[in-house]
Amino acid sequence: MKEQELSSGRRIFLKRDFERGFIKFCGFKAHKVGKGFFTSKLEIGPDHRQQDGFIHAGVMATMADHTAGYAAFTLVSEKYRVLTIEFKINFLKPASGEMLVCKARILKEGKLVMVAESEVFDSRQRQKRLVAKAVATLMAVPAEKIERS
Amino acid sequence: MKEQELSSGRRIFLKRDFERGFIKFCGFKAHKVGKGFFTSKLEIGPDHRQQDGFIHAGVMATMADHTAGYAAFTLVSEKYRVLTIEFKINFLKPASGEMLVCKARILKEGKLVMVAESEVFDSRQRQKRLVAKAVATLMAVPAEKIERS
Amino acid sequence: MKEQELSSGRRIFLKRDFERGFIKFCGFKAHKVGKGFFTSKLEIGPDHRQQDGFIHAGVMATMADHTAGYAAFTLVSEKYRVLTIEFKINFLKPASGEMLVCKARILKEGKLVMVAESEVFDSRQRQKRLVAKAVATLMAVPAEKIERS
Amino acid sequence: MKEQELSSGRRIFLKRDFERGFIKFCGFKAHKVGKGFFTSKLEIGPDHRQQDGFIHAGVMATMADHTAGYAAFTLVSEKYRVLTIEFKINFLKPASGEMLVCKARILKEGKLVMVAESEVFDSRQRQKRLVAKAVATLMAVPAEKIERS
Repeated sequence: MKEQELSSGRRIFLKRDFERGFIKFCGFKAHKVGKGFFTSKLEIGPDHRQQDGFIHAGVMATMADHTAGYAAFTLVSEKYRVLTIEFKINFLKPASGEMLVCKARILKEGKLVMVAESEVFDSRQRQKRLVAKAVATLMAVPAEKIERS
Repeated sequence: MKEQELSSGRRIFLKRDFERGFIKFCGFKAHKVGKGFFTSKLEIGPDHRQQDGFIHAGVMATMADHTAGYAAFTLVSEKYRVLTIEFKINFLKPASGEMLVCKARILKEGKLVMVAESEVFDSRQRQKRLVAKAVATLMAVPAEKIERS
Repeated sequence: MKEQELSSGRRIFLKRDFERGFIKFCGFKAHKVGKGFFTSKLEIGPDHRQQDGFIHAGVMATMADHTAGYAAFTLVSEKYRVLTIEFKINFLKPASGEMLVCKARILKEGKLVMVAESEVFDSRQRQKRLVAKAVATLMAVPAEKIERS
Repeated sequence: MKEQELSSGRRIFLKRDFERGFIKFCGFKAHKVGKGFFTSKLEIGPDHRQQDGFIHAGVMATMADHTAGYAAFTLVSEKYRVLTIEFKINFLKPASGEMLVCKARILKEGKLVMVAESEVFDSRQRQKRLVAKAVATLMAVPAEKIERS
């Protein structure tokens, strides 16, 4: 899976493309990227919390989904885009730190359908705890098909 | 499950409590509430889209999770709060309309663990299409335990 | 989705094909079939139970998965087979009746990827209770590709 | 999680208890057990296959669920039993080997609710390939409550 590395141009494109629309609005940042994996970060502010002060499950789900999608994106040709078919996420501990870190990697490569897992870590005062784990099924879709729809 | 209705005070509390933190930031609005169900709405703006112009999967996931959580919230006593244990969501069609509507209902009531399903509809020019379906497992937690943590 | 009905030959083929291998070994029976839906039954015996006397979660999961797969199978051409990409199942109540009934229907039709939901009912003395609910993602695969692998 | 080991009596009990009812009927065998993990094996016969000759998804789902349940079982006191709340499984490759091996480990310990992940490997001619991955949510239930129901 990792025999050939991403070109630096592709790496730059993927990191920029990661931070658009809802992702930019929420403040998620691309961090590392390589064939079959992607990592991202989020500095936590008051807008990321829920009614009890914890980081909202939707924030972690968005991060897990989007980072998994871009891990899949590293494996498709430049003529393809990636859509999420479905994902499932377990929240292991309430998260309330200053930073979230997400690491996604591909479990199953495929021309059309890919499977990725994402782990979300709550980072506080140099401690990092696994707070959520997701498995996502992604689909590669020809870019011209998406633009038309 | 529906033999006794929610008091109007409880209904008002739940609808207000729904729209806080990340949910307020994203613009989700509580709509209808009753014992074992909850509905919500979101007027779509450019910040809710992803890189290809569709509504971001994370927006629909957040809506499905949060609305399911509040459907569960209608069934617990006032001394309890609700946390999401896990959820799974399938994206059935790309969504790109002007409004999302989410309907959540409880599949399984329980003192501690509840299961809800959420359906997300894409609404455009009076047409409503099912675009995502989620099943969530929720847990009732004593409020004082959450405040302490 | 239901405008054109299945031919009676196709219905007979699907019901027979349903009851092979592991499914026959476990005793699952095809019941009803139509475009986009499938139902099945299982008479419960001691071999279907787990260590505490309840019907094993694996029995219900197998039933939910297989019946969902055949609901998808009703929508593909005769040159295609169906494989499960993934499924998720919630167990709503412990099941311990004399018969299980499963109803599966397609939530999303597609040329390649389909989504189905399955409900499993525990039937005892004319009472029927929903005991498990699953959502499955299925893929249509050309038959000749499967035979070769 | 692993500071104190299981007593040999408890290990023997768990391995025996694993192989009952539906699990014995299907031929699954307990293999290794320790605090927070459990492994199992299945020698594949014709009864484990589906209509196209692959190992049935229900076989892998049953194995993933049951092995995850016993990984959780290693962490509860002797007065408790374990029930599955829900699980999700992705099938990464069609499996068709001579033996399945399943490894389950606990991702989140808890007094009531636990989360485990299971990996299923297809073993053939000394090669082992990951063919399915599941995440399960389990609940500890007092034994006397189960016997009464």
